[in-house]
Amino acid sequence: MKQDKHHHIENLPDFAGLKVNEGIPQPSAVSEDSVRRFLQKRRKLMTVEEYVEGILKGNMPVLSQAVTLVESSRPDHQELAREILRQCLPYSGKSVRVGITGVPGAGKSTFIEALGSMITGEGHKLAVLAIDPSSERSRGSILGDKTRMEQLAGDPRAYIRPSPSAGSLGGVARKTRETVILCEAAGFDTIFIETVGVGQSETAVHSMTDFFLLILIAGAGDELQGIKRGIMEMADLVGINKADGNNLDKARLASIQYKNALHLFPPKPSGWDPQVMTCSALEKSGVPEIWQTIQNYCQLTTSNGWFSTNRNQQSVWWMYETIHERLRQEFYMVPGMKQMIAEMEERVKKSEVTSFEAAQRLLDGANKSKQSDIQP
Amino acid sequence: MKQDKHHHIENLPDFAGLKVNEGIPQPSAVSEDSVRRFLQKRRKLMTVEEYVEGILKGNMPVLSQAVTLVESSRPDHQELAREILRQCLPYSGKSVRVGITGVPGAGKSTFIEALGSMITGEGHKLAVLAIDPSSERSRGSILGDKTRMEQLAGDPRAYIRPSPSAGSLGGVARKTRETVILCEAAGFDTIFIETVGVGQSETAVHSMTDFFLLILIAGAGDELQGIKRGIMEMADLVGINKADGNNLDKARLASIQYKNALHLFPPKPSGWDPQVMTCSALEKSGVPEIWQTIQNYCQLTTSNGWFSTNRNQQSVWWMYETIHERLRQEFYMVPGMKQMIAEMEERVKKSEVTSFEAAQRLLDGANKSKQSDIQP
Repeated sequence: MKQDKHHHIENLPDFAGLKVNEGIPQPSAVSEDSVRRFLQKRRKLMTVEEYVEGILKGNMPVLSQAVTLVESSRPDHQELAREILRQCLPYSGKSVRVGITGVPGAGKSTFIEALGSMITGEGHKLAVLAIDPSSERSRGSILGDKTRMEQLAGDPRAYIRPSPSAGSLGGVARKTRETVILCEAAGFDTIFIETVGVGQSETAVHSMTDFFLLILIAGAGDELQGIKRGIMEMADLVGINKADGNNLDKARLASIQYKNALHLFPPKPSGWDPQVMTCSALEKSGVPEIWQTIQNYCQLTTSNGWFSTNRNQQSVWWMYETIHERLRQEFYMVPGMKQMIAEMEERVKKSEVTSFEAAQRLLDGANKSKQSDIQP
Repeated sequence: MKQDKHHHIENLPDFAGLKVNEGIPQPSAVSEDSVRRFLQKRRKLMTVEEYVEGILKGNMPVLSQAVTLVESSRPDHQELAREILRQCLPYSGKSVRVGITGVPGAGKSTFIEALGSMITGEGHKLAVLAIDPSSERSRGSILGDKTRMEQLAGDPRAYIRPSPSAGSLGGVARKTRETVILCEAAGFDTIFIETVGVGQSETAVHSMTDFFLLILIAGAGDELQGIKRGIMEMADLVGINKADGNNLDKARLASIQYKNALHLFPPKPSGWDPQVMTCSALEKSGVPEIWQTIQNYCQLTTSNGWFSTNRNQQSVWWMYETIHERLRQEFYMVPGMKQMIAEMEERVKKSEVTSFEAAQRLLDGANKSKQSDIQP
């Protein structure tokens, strides 16, 4: 009997649209009644003012709930989230946003732990967010994320928030970008946004961060296998991790190779010369130097104006990107479109129709469908 | 008097939507009457069947006129072009399409002359097309293009066609891609598509070619100044041109550097290992080796299936790309949108509104405008 109840509770992933898996007491420690009371309390949303006040005070549970609203797909939650964001926006922006990506096995989590703990130790407040369009958000993965970064998870100056649940890359990225606003309003002065897994999300992360850090390990030239083309050119800093023990020489050699390679790329509009540094997250060597480099970057780009220019460009870029994404969504959601596209793709592949002719026919089809919607 | 008439003729850039600057007799050699008769003859469009028959026979003037129809913005021309393309499509595809780009001053034209003449000398039929969204097509630039490549311009096995006139990159690229179909149907087995100037057009060229050739010159690391980020990673072959005289050692050193750099990139889905080669278009050294490399590439990718897989993917990509471009065009052409966007951009930059909120408002504005169009 008791087991059944617990089972029921554990499988309650979403109550009234709000995830209840944060801050909820452990099932084994609570009675059914206390859970019901807790859920009823949670069910009642606070007012916009209460959320904003809580966030500006740096109240972490309130921040968490507001982020959950941002991530929710319920229209009333979305409206609430929009208003909270609108009021928090003037208090946002005062942080350094660092994008972190890396090949699987490069020790990204350990690196974030090492760098993050160092930063909070200096008195900074750090939020660690993630973009992973393939993630299925569940209690499991939240716990997973926090377990990956045990030390930071217990750090009162750190806030770890896993990737929003599965959805289009654009949708997931939007939610993360809005979460940045809330975190900054809550006083977090350092934001890490990491890509999870091997992904298409690097560009999204790059387009919402000030500094882009690529974590690699020394290898035989195969180390970029998991990295999408073009990522190298985005990097402001390539960190060769696991530069310890037997790996030290290999890492140093790789560092020289990457330095030479980066030199061949066109100069960056930021005026920043991308760096290559070795580090060992395990031994914590090279980590302070990387943090110093990020600070040097901020100093340079603040004084030459790039820091704010880039942020403005990013904001405008996201505006257009969102418009374009919604236009596409609208088109692909036309009834029967999926089938029409599949057929047309086949005809294009067989050279029965040119790409442009195919596009035109699909667009005509969509317009017809829309018109008949309006005037039935 | 006579001068006036000539002046009149020279300034006739577009007659009945068809450019009359190809094949037209030189003004000094013709009477006003003969020009009138010529124009009347040109004015009458041929039938679809006549165009298709002419193209399949490899009739160059007919091919030229069909390409002009593809490039025309007149609805009747466009319809005619569509039908010609539809009938030519089954005869297209049997060529190798080579994209050629390079920094200004790398000697791209001389290189194309050298490689092109060698290829036609072997009996191949070569079409040289260009994508330059910034070009203003005029008699001047056509002559300019042909002057750039004097030898090929007089070569009966070569067809040189400058970039379609100014327009959106998507529009210009579409026209070039459709011109490829016509050229292939006319028996051209080798197609060069070059980017002109420093451009955004590299991606467009890359997405319609089988092989991507990047022409550089040896320098002090600044040689990529004019090349957009990400281009290096597209290259199947980097040719270091002007490897002659005093430049020879510098070119060889650059070649080694680029080889090392390319090695650090992730492997290509084609299975092809990008090459770096030195050449001198002036002395014609290294040019046969580059042609051999292109043939090696074709052999490898034909046997491993990538050649056709890639072409299918490109066709499908262009279908989606066209759909997305048209959707965007439709949105930006909503009356008053330009003004609304400008205002919203300012508000986004001032952090008065989030990027996503701004996008939503603009989309709402467009939908309202469309609805009031339909139901006034």
